Amino acid sequence: MKGTIGILGGMGPLATADLFRKIVLMTDAACDSDHLRVFIDSNAQIPDRTRAILEHGENPVPQMRSALDNLLRCGASCIIMPCNTAHYFIDELRAHSDVPFIDMLEVTALRCASLFPGKTAGVWGTTGTLKSGLYSRALEKAGVPYVLPDEAGQQVLMDLIYRVKGGEVLRDRAPLASLMAGMHEAGADYFILGCTELPIIIEQLCPPGDFVDPTAELARAAIEFCGGRVKPL
Amino acid sequence: MKGTIGILGGMGPLATADLFRKIVLMTDAACDSDHLRVFIDSNAQIPDRTRAILEHGENPVPQMRSALDNLLRCGASCIIMPCNTAHYFIDELRAHSDVPFIDMLEVTALRCASLFPGKTAGVWGTTGTLKSGLYSRALEKAGVPYVLPDEAGQQVLMDLIYRVKGGEVLRDRAPLASLMAGMHEAGADYFILGCTELPIIIEQLCPPGDFVDPTAELARAAIEFCGGRVKPL
Repeated sequence: MKGTIGILGGMGPLATADLFRKIVLMTDAACDSDHLRVFIDSNAQIPDRTRAILEHGENPVPQMRSALDNLLRCGASCIIMPCNTAHYFIDELRAHSDVPFIDMLEVTALRCASLFPGKTAGVWGTTGTLKSGLYSRALEKAGVPYVLPDEAGQQVLMDLIYRVKGGEVLRDRAPLASLMAGMHEAGADYFILGCTELPIIIEQLCPPGDFVDPTAELARAAIEFCGGRVKPL
Repeated sequence: MKGTIGILGGMGPLATADLFRKIVLMTDAACDSDHLRVFIDSNAQIPDRTRAILEHGENPVPQMRSALDNLLRCGASCIIMPCNTAHYFIDELRAHSDVPFIDMLEVTALRCASLFPGKTAGVWGTTGTLKSGLYSRALEKAGVPYVLPDEAGQQVLMDLIYRVKGGEVLRDRAPLASLMAGMHEAGADYFILGCTELPIIIEQLCPPGDFVDPTAELARAAIEFCGGRVKPL
């Protein structure tokens, strides 16, 4: 009997749609019934996570729990959250659930360790995600060496992220190329796309390099946890 | 207070992901909280609908009801199903729910009437959908004149649909062009993409013509029903 995946979503809605699509596309299935059952609560009313962490904004946990309760009521066998920053609250949510949460940053860090052993990760993400130390802790636990962007590099990253959030299609490759060159110099061998806008930026600018996409890693981990087969590459 | 959309999905999973993505992309939203809350049960265990209708295969209604019950338990304000053929069972499902179902074929037919008044629709779909007369009834009710493919044309359509389902990327535009020419001759002014593989075929082959996409029409109707704003074109 295969398990069912519960997606605590809405942070944001498009990232939730992207994760669901990746679960479907990465499942090795010849017909509908080879797929896993998936429950999604895309709760767009969850307050901004970064603002809650850095600026004492509204606590998002009650709305996150409302979605979690729905997924548990439907019978989800595991819970996943397609939002890097939301993992700041994962322990608080775990306290309310006997069903396992699969930690996106943890599976990403383990994947980095197995794909690029001994190599150094360059970690990209929003200022909120990086300042909270979420990736640093996950990578240290997995024994993955890493470097973070310097302040100017982080500015470039946030500028690109907000331009894509605003609907812009990026064409100028120079800012990203200079960020990558600087981080390569600081030791980065490959990059973690630790914000859901970053895979879109990579698709638009096609920079040469090695990347790890946490959304795809989360999809893979959830499929395997629930007894599905991941399509071989 | 805005409503929440319940998606009775899994028929198939990729079509469900496509509908969810279209709801997000078509919503006029400047931030996460401008989006609508969406519940999805992508229940891949729902037996094949076409087989149930044409070949006395396993009844899909019990598994569809299992998903419906989950959506009702979560508090959905309306139910939508991203599968044309599944609408064969809509009355049986409606009998188990006080929450309104939005009928994909009905909203598509109404859209045809308002977009192309007096013009004739060419209806494309699986043999199961067309043989069950679902589109014919919806279009007649909306006063939309229509033509169906002849037997040879229906063969072309099924061949294209199964090739795309099998993962093929279509390159040869000739079979679709000849189907379209034949239906134009029979009176079709535009085409209804009444199977979830058909928008993919149109994207791959880019034939010139006017098309109505029922998935997009269902997304639009659900957003409006729940009090969201559809992005202007």
